[in-house]
Amino acid sequence: MGSLYPHYEEENYSSNTANLLNPEEFRRQGHMIIDFIADYYQNMEKYPVLSQVQPGYLAKLLPKSAPNIPEPIETILHDIQQYIIPGITHWQSPNYFAYFPSSGSIAGFLGEVLSTGFNVVGFNWISSPAATELEFVTMDWLGQMLGLPQSFLFSGTGGGVIQGTTCEAILCTLVAARDQMLAKVGRENMGKLVFYGSDQTHCALLKAAKVAGLECKNFRAIKTMRSTAFQLSAESLRTTIRLDVEAGLIPAFLCATIGTTSTTAVDPIRSLSEVTKEYGMWIHVDAAYAGSACICPEYRHFIDGVENVNSFSFNAHKWFFTTLDCCCLWVKDPGALTKSLSSSAEYLKNNASDSKQVVDYKDWQITLSRRFRSMKLWLVLRSYGVENLRNFLRSHVKMAKRFQQLVESDNRFEVVVPRNFAMVCFRVLPTSLKKEPNGCKIESGNIEAKLIDQEYANDFNRNLLETVNASGKVFMTHTIVEGVYVIRFAVGATLTEDKHVIKAWKVVQETVDGMLATI
Amino acid sequence: MGSLYPHYEEENYSSNTANLLNPEEFRRQGHMIIDFIADYYQNMEKYPVLSQVQPGYLAKLLPKSAPNIPEPIETILHDIQQYIIPGITHWQSPNYFAYFPSSGSIAGFLGEVLSTGFNVVGFNWISSPAATELEFVTMDWLGQMLGLPQSFLFSGTGGGVIQGTTCEAILCTLVAARDQMLAKVGRENMGKLVFYGSDQTHCALLKAAKVAGLECKNFRAIKTMRSTAFQLSAESLRTTIRLDVEAGLIPAFLCATIGTTSTTAVDPIRSLSEVTKEYGMWIHVDAAYAGSACICPEYRHFIDGVENVNSFSFNAHKWFFTTLDCCCLWVKDPGALTKSLSSSAEYLKNNASDSKQVVDYKDWQITLSRRFRSMKLWLVLRSYGVENLRNFLRSHVKMAKRFQQLVESDNRFEVVVPRNFAMVCFRVLPTSLKKEPNGCKIESGNIEAKLIDQEYANDFNRNLLETVNASGKVFMTHTIVEGVYVIRFAVGATLTEDKHVIKAWKVVQETVDGMLATI
Repeated sequence: MGSLYPHYEEENYSSNTANLLNPEEFRRQGHMIIDFIADYYQNMEKYPVLSQVQPGYLAKLLPKSAPNIPEPIETILHDIQQYIIPGITHWQSPNYFAYFPSSGSIAGFLGEVLSTGFNVVGFNWISSPAATELEFVTMDWLGQMLGLPQSFLFSGTGGGVIQGTTCEAILCTLVAARDQMLAKVGRENMGKLVFYGSDQTHCALLKAAKVAGLECKNFRAIKTMRSTAFQLSAESLRTTIRLDVEAGLIPAFLCATIGTTSTTAVDPIRSLSEVTKEYGMWIHVDAAYAGSACICPEYRHFIDGVENVNSFSFNAHKWFFTTLDCCCLWVKDPGALTKSLSSSAEYLKNNASDSKQVVDYKDWQITLSRRFRSMKLWLVLRSYGVENLRNFLRSHVKMAKRFQQLVESDNRFEVVVPRNFAMVCFRVLPTSLKKEPNGCKIESGNIEAKLIDQEYANDFNRNLLETVNASGKVFMTHTIVEGVYVIRFAVGATLTEDKHVIKAWKVVQETVDGMLATI
Repeated sequence: MGSLYPHYEEENYSSNTANLLNPEEFRRQGHMIIDFIADYYQNMEKYPVLSQVQPGYLAKLLPKSAPNIPEPIETILHDIQQYIIPGITHWQSPNYFAYFPSSGSIAGFLGEVLSTGFNVVGFNWISSPAATELEFVTMDWLGQMLGLPQSFLFSGTGGGVIQGTTCEAILCTLVAARDQMLAKVGRENMGKLVFYGSDQTHCALLKAAKVAGLECKNFRAIKTMRSTAFQLSAESLRTTIRLDVEAGLIPAFLCATIGTTSTTAVDPIRSLSEVTKEYGMWIHVDAAYAGSACICPEYRHFIDGVENVNSFSFNAHKWFFTTLDCCCLWVKDPGALTKSLSSSAEYLKNNASDSKQVVDYKDWQITLSRRFRSMKLWLVLRSYGVENLRNFLRSHVKMAKRFQQLVESDNRFEVVVPRNFAMVCFRVLPTSLKKEPNGCKIESGNIEAKLIDQEYANDFNRNLLETVNASGKVFMTHTIVEGVYVIRFAVGATLTEDKHVIKAWKVVQETVDGMLATI
């Protein structure tokens, strides 16, 4: 080189660190962990699906402080088997019917493992171009599968981004909507912004609004009714908005839902979007649970009118075979997101970003750092293919239908709301409970008596659910709608087969038999 | 049973779904993926550390839509090797010295894989008691290792929670601080709340404030100086706050930093906390990068005074061998967090939560759903042990010291700010650049000429960095402080050994030799 300056000559430097990523040790321990998890799936049905431990169980079993010296993986896996597994509620169990299941799959698992192995921090394009580009390829693929218009796709004028959860998707779109409206009406009017949902909208909306600094009192949880399957009606929305406008408030955001958490109710997007359009509001569609079903032609009608909304999201980790977390969000106007969520700092600058030729996803979300989440989605799409994915979803719906038929075949029970997807809302009817606990027969002739009936039925169903869950044989959860305590039976765990649905029903029936016998 | 109602008799139901979690197929494909990743680590140094692809490269290589039929894992892995790996910037490469590295490890990997295998959605205690309880056990362990006072631990009066990233930790604490202050002064004063950092504070603070609905104009990025190593001084803070109070504004939040992103500067917590205490403000300590080093007794002094702050966070996924994402946040008053971040809905209610005997972490963070992140942290702590973890961190510091010595041994270069941890900020000195690009010698006698010198030096160092990175041999990034373009050399990738540091220095030196030869 001819430099006069001292150049370092390589010496025999030895590293004084053990290699924490030694490939051969990685291979050895990696294979062990795969076998451990495979065994776990194999033995799944031996474990009570709902963990039976008591609060504080674990601290009693573990040391008070971290070990000073290393412990072998064999010891750790032994402890996981001994101490952790009993404290797990087995979301992958075929007997899991609670909340909305989180449907894992081999492809989803492998994708997450690959992403963990690469361990890239994909905040901007340059930090790992493949992480960004695979995300917009898969989001376009998935958008096409859902029949989203070009206005939501990168191949059109919009774009998709993978958030962690629906809570983030709602927060991001709400903040964008807030800022878009404030840009028109002035920031001093923040206290006047009103945001809308129904009384069935997920609690994530109110929480997002609180985080975003909006006024809780400006949240309208518009009433829905059992008689109209807990749908938010455009008429109710319009009436509510009119009152707000008359009161000098500013309607800013509506969150409509496809598949509410309580009963999988579906809000009518087309008619709602006509109302929000009049007022220049942002409308977000939260299809967290049911969005995936809309890849099936026979369910696509549930999102008719989606071309009129601003943003649409669903959780691929819920009912689309990717593991937690993977919430797919599409927006028509990415600029509205990035205007609110961009950050800049010298240490993040690079030529690719400056060229404006690339997407920097950090500006589409709350956080800077982000995992390579598209990997698992891509693996799911490729490993199973569109047609099979549809069939898997259909098989869950079919199992839910089977359960519904079983409920309907026993006239002590009712299906409380029409089943839309793979969840059945049911309960033991008040009329099946002939006696009060003290043995007196209830006279059901008047309203007061009916209310007592209802309350008693609610208690009975609550006890039923608790007894069923305490058995460890199945796990379901509940909701209350229009004062009615409802047991939710959600099919969606990947290992569930017909026989598990039938067993679950037997557990319910036998528990009810036992309970009624003691009245 | 004696029931008169029809009971379902088990028939020979066959499931019409392929089993997407078939344990034996899981085992087969799982082993394949482990070998794939082990081979990736083994071959890591064959790949250019900074991806050399051009924007849009991937869409051209992949089909326009998802496949209709399944593709075998072998094909997919082939495509990953062929199409994805060239688009990856290899954060796990031993030649990775950019941003702050994300230090993976076998234990961190295994923990994430286990958590993916269990795939539990741990929003509340009952949804998987072990996920919640292991989190507070490990957070207490880690808190002890850092010498956090009991007021931050569950065994005391506080508690820890694992967030995804520092952005979330800052947003959560800022929202808690905002609401705590508004509860005192009235919500109508939101526009008066002021939040403070230095001009070195991470851009996450401003973004969090925007999300939280605070006024950008109320952010004070207090000036720091190279002469005082870019520390935020208590005096400057006090002066700034006084002016704000005089102007009728309300100081609410300070984000102090231990190890800033640009230069790993350390703000003096003790003296800053004396100021914030006077004004009843919330002080959060963002130790995203350097927090982990404070488990070593010799670095613990950097967080002296931590007992006086409200909250403290660091990223275990940065420099603590867990994979992304794992940000550890401790708060003294969990009630302040949960007051702002709690959500409730009938479908989430359960006896354990009602008993108030358990922690429901959903109320400590932005999102409802959460992954079983403590698993990887627990595995790292147990697999390596406290003493080794300290030594791994020390070995990184030692390598950075080595690099610093190399820089200092070549008088064309300078180390721009004192090295605190495992990052060296350096550049080629203006005085080493004898000529302007057009060949004229610069006269450096006056201020104007010095500014020209500086600008020219900045351009030279920018070119140097770009050339070095384009070689694919190493990857470093830059910052600009006090107008000086600085190359950041951050040691922290797990596979890095002395020889890689020495090689990196050779690449820099040889590139400079070549560049100077052409001036």
